[in-house]
Amino acid sequence: MGKTKVYLLDGGSLVLDGFHVFWNRGPAGEIRFPCFSVLVDHPDGRFLFDTGYDRNHVERVLPFEKPLQSAGQTLTAQLALIGLRASDIDAIINSHFHFDHCGGNKLFPRAKTICHRDELRAARGPEPFERLGYSDLSFAPGFPSPFPAPPAEATEEAPEETPAPLELPAMLENGPAGRAFELVSGDAEIVAGLFLLETPGHTAGHCSLMVELADRPPILFTADACYSAKNLEMMCISGFHRDPAKDVRSMARLKSLAAEHSAELIFSHDPESYAQYLKAPAFYS
Amino acid sequence: MGKTKVYLLDGGSLVLDGFHVFWNRGPAGEIRFPCFSVLVDHPDGRFLFDTGYDRNHVERVLPFEKPLQSAGQTLTAQLALIGLRASDIDAIINSHFHFDHCGGNKLFPRAKTICHRDELRAARGPEPFERLGYSDLSFAPGFPSPFPAPPAEATEEAPEETPAPLELPAMLENGPAGRAFELVSGDAEIVAGLFLLETPGHTAGHCSLMVELADRPPILFTADACYSAKNLEMMCISGFHRDPAKDVRSMARLKSLAAEHSAELIFSHDPESYAQYLKAPAFYS
Repeated sequence: MGKTKVYLLDGGSLVLDGFHVFWNRGPAGEIRFPCFSVLVDHPDGRFLFDTGYDRNHVERVLPFEKPLQSAGQTLTAQLALIGLRASDIDAIINSHFHFDHCGGNKLFPRAKTICHRDELRAARGPEPFERLGYSDLSFAPGFPSPFPAPPAEATEEAPEETPAPLELPAMLENGPAGRAFELVSGDAEIVAGLFLLETPGHTAGHCSLMVELADRPPILFTADACYSAKNLEMMCISGFHRDPAKDVRSMARLKSLAAEHSAELIFSHDPESYAQYLKAPAFYS
Repeated sequence: MGKTKVYLLDGGSLVLDGFHVFWNRGPAGEIRFPCFSVLVDHPDGRFLFDTGYDRNHVERVLPFEKPLQSAGQTLTAQLALIGLRASDIDAIINSHFHFDHCGGNKLFPRAKTICHRDELRAARGPEPFERLGYSDLSFAPGFPSPFPAPPAEATEEAPEETPAPLELPAMLENGPAGRAFELVSGDAEIVAGLFLLETPGHTAGHCSLMVELADRPPILFTADACYSAKNLEMMCISGFHRDPAKDVRSMARLKSLAAEHSAELIFSHDPESYAQYLKAPAFYS
């Protein structure tokens, strides 16, 4: 068996106002920040942690986030950089189901989707202020989307067959129809050395991911429990949140986990830090 | 016994960014909005609902909110417009303890303070993101302030004697030392026709106030559960909140209460609506 390798797959960038990135602190003004997915090539399988955004979706539903995503920054192109195809992915692990973290899920119809039970429930029944965040429900064919794609686009992007939706209770046990879901509660070790850790607040069931590596300290992917090093330094959460008090505690948890495991934090939307990270085809191992 | 009269006491204005007034909607840009207190002159006593901001405090701790408050817009001057002095006030009712709603409490050392039990607890132990909101603790002499006034100002503004602080459990039963507090839980009818109604979310123990009048429909003072008519129309809460989901439900509750009682809504920080409201010495009755 080989060692675990971790690849960052560049997914382009989006724009938010400084008051969204740093809740009630700002300063105001546009901030362009990266979006990326993480491939964990583990002896027990290939796991994709988050899948970035679908450019067509963002251009249609949230054009004010000004997506920049070249042909080389699609998930398919990024996987090709390391000689992989969609069918090589065994499972997707979603930190949460905001559109910029699950937009590529639909490219992997045969992969199992792993997420927190509370997150699937939240995506199915969002608060009014979460509707844009949860606007890309293409990861769950049975979910009624508040922003259905027009027929022309749907033909191109929808999975070959759309299965009948499950009733809500069954869905929450088994996941949406037509996809294999594995719903976790609490912290979970997915495979040896791959830990999905509860960091709720940004969304109801948000999780971060810690990966143990053979030749270096573990990497702790914060996902949106902490956008950037500056957010952590200021202990300032983002303006998008379901429960700000939990979000603050989750950020504190990340800090404490990093200290406890001597882990390196990799932030989700941090232009400065991102410039320093290894990007595919380079990898951490 | 006379009829109940309701006076709006102008307290000047402050400035916030549009992203604070309309959470994650904006648009960006400064919005100047009014702050005011409400005198309810009721057959059973004179009640002050909120007490505006203390200009010195805002200039010292939150100067970026650009306070504009003339000598005629202090609470003392506003009460004088209707021939009243601080000693004529029997009780203060606080919607919540953000600095722009309790800044004048200290001017009424003999008045009882009525508030929700959860609100006093929140002011005593705020979340990190609530510290500026709860920065003026002069209403509660026993509370340790994170922003203590410098000695010179303190001499001018502090009550004549600062009583020893109570221990936390006693404080939460009895209120801070040196002031008579009446802590309510649930909706409460303070005196006949004067209802303190739970609308949490903006803060943990936020309440709105409904006043029944003899010659017109009741008035429902939203306080910060709804800054403005536009917030209600968009069902968009403010960027300052302890629990956004509760805040949304409280806004819906206000809408439903207004419909149920045919009540007129008076918003807390609404430049357009405020221009239409009667201001002291004029009154509603």
